[in-house]
Amino acid sequence: MTKPIEFYFDFASPYSYLAHKQIRRIEEKENIKINYKPIFLGGLHKLIGITAAAFINSKAKFMIKDCKMVSKKLNIKFKFNPLFPINSLNIMRGLLTINSNIKDSYIDSFFNAYWQDGLNLNDEKIIFDILKKCKVKKNDFLKKIKDQKIKYKLKKLTQEAYDKDIFGAPTFMVNEKIFWGQDRLVYALDEFFKKN
Amino acid sequence: MTKPIEFYFDFASPYSYLAHKQIRRIEEKENIKINYKPIFLGGLHKLIGITAAAFINSKAKFMIKDCKMVSKKLNIKFKFNPLFPINSLNIMRGLLTINSNIKDSYIDSFFNAYWQDGLNLNDEKIIFDILKKCKVKKNDFLKKIKDQKIKYKLKKLTQEAYDKDIFGAPTFMVNEKIFWGQDRLVYALDEFFKKN
Repeated sequence: MTKPIEFYFDFASPYSYLAHKQIRRIEEKENIKINYKPIFLGGLHKLIGITAAAFINSKAKFMIKDCKMVSKKLNIKFKFNPLFPINSLNIMRGLLTINSNIKDSYIDSFFNAYWQDGLNLNDEKIIFDILKKCKVKKNDFLKKIKDQKIKYKLKKLTQEAYDKDIFGAPTFMVNEKIFWGQDRLVYALDEFFKKN
Repeated sequence: MTKPIEFYFDFASPYSYLAHKQIRRIEEKENIKINYKPIFLGGLHKLIGITAAAFINSKAKFMIKDCKMVSKKLNIKFKFNPLFPINSLNIMRGLLTINSNIKDSYIDSFFNAYWQDGLNLNDEKIIFDILKKCKVKKNDFLKKIKDQKIKYKLKKLTQEAYDKDIFGAPTFMVNEKIFWGQDRLVYALDEFFKKN
């Protein structure tokens, strides 16, 4: 039995995108599957009382440059989304409504839309185009993301992350150990591959 | 003429210690000298309105584990100081009072005391032992760290860092570019060694 690697993320987080791109490479190279765990980062920060980097001027300015720098070094296509800080709530909720066989495609498509192409996902037309490519029916989607059960589900997943002492995204979890930040993926993999 | 690498640090910051140890290796290997810039991290955070990781429970818990993990990977001796969060104000001020020929020895000794040996530097006897090794006269030291000019000097250095959009420690600065965190030393060196 293999211990899982969990990946806590929010589409709104550019560092989550950078982690995601590295994960996809590793999944292919190592023939493993990493368990994607959606959380609502804004909600998590609120539970803890953290002011996100996005809302601290000097930190936000650094973050933009840093993401570009890291993406260049790792050879990851990247465009800082001009709408940052982004509200990804509907797209995060949407992930909880779709069939598991299109989950990967949905995640890849929306991460790319936000941080590779820098698209405006407040524009319903752009969302609908992506949904179409993923074979998600837009009317189903629009109805389900307003469902109280779905809203509650994302809230619960965020609360569960908080209860595990997760405080940011991206976070990796292996053997109940937390690894925060895309810089720490290599440490999470060390934990995963080490012989017990 | 060589462009300088500046290293903004506070003894109170364990990641500053981890950066410092890597810097010393690089200085030796590359035969360069990195310009140490003392700042009072607590003051900087206050100027910006940042709550330090030390004061956020889940973040502080991760930080302790993370520092141990990073130090192990980089083969750096490390002991998380049980008195963390630490008030390093007197030791930071002290650095501004000593002769430049003993600056390196002072920095090495106090970083090691805090984060290699995990000593209690609220204990004057421990401070005096270190000062003696660095050939700093304790009475001079005690007098000077209470001097308003020295207090103001550290405040000014911190304000200057803030004015440059520095928001944390360790921070490296090369060619007016900011690199935040010990993870980013490699990027600062890329900037330093790149041909213009």
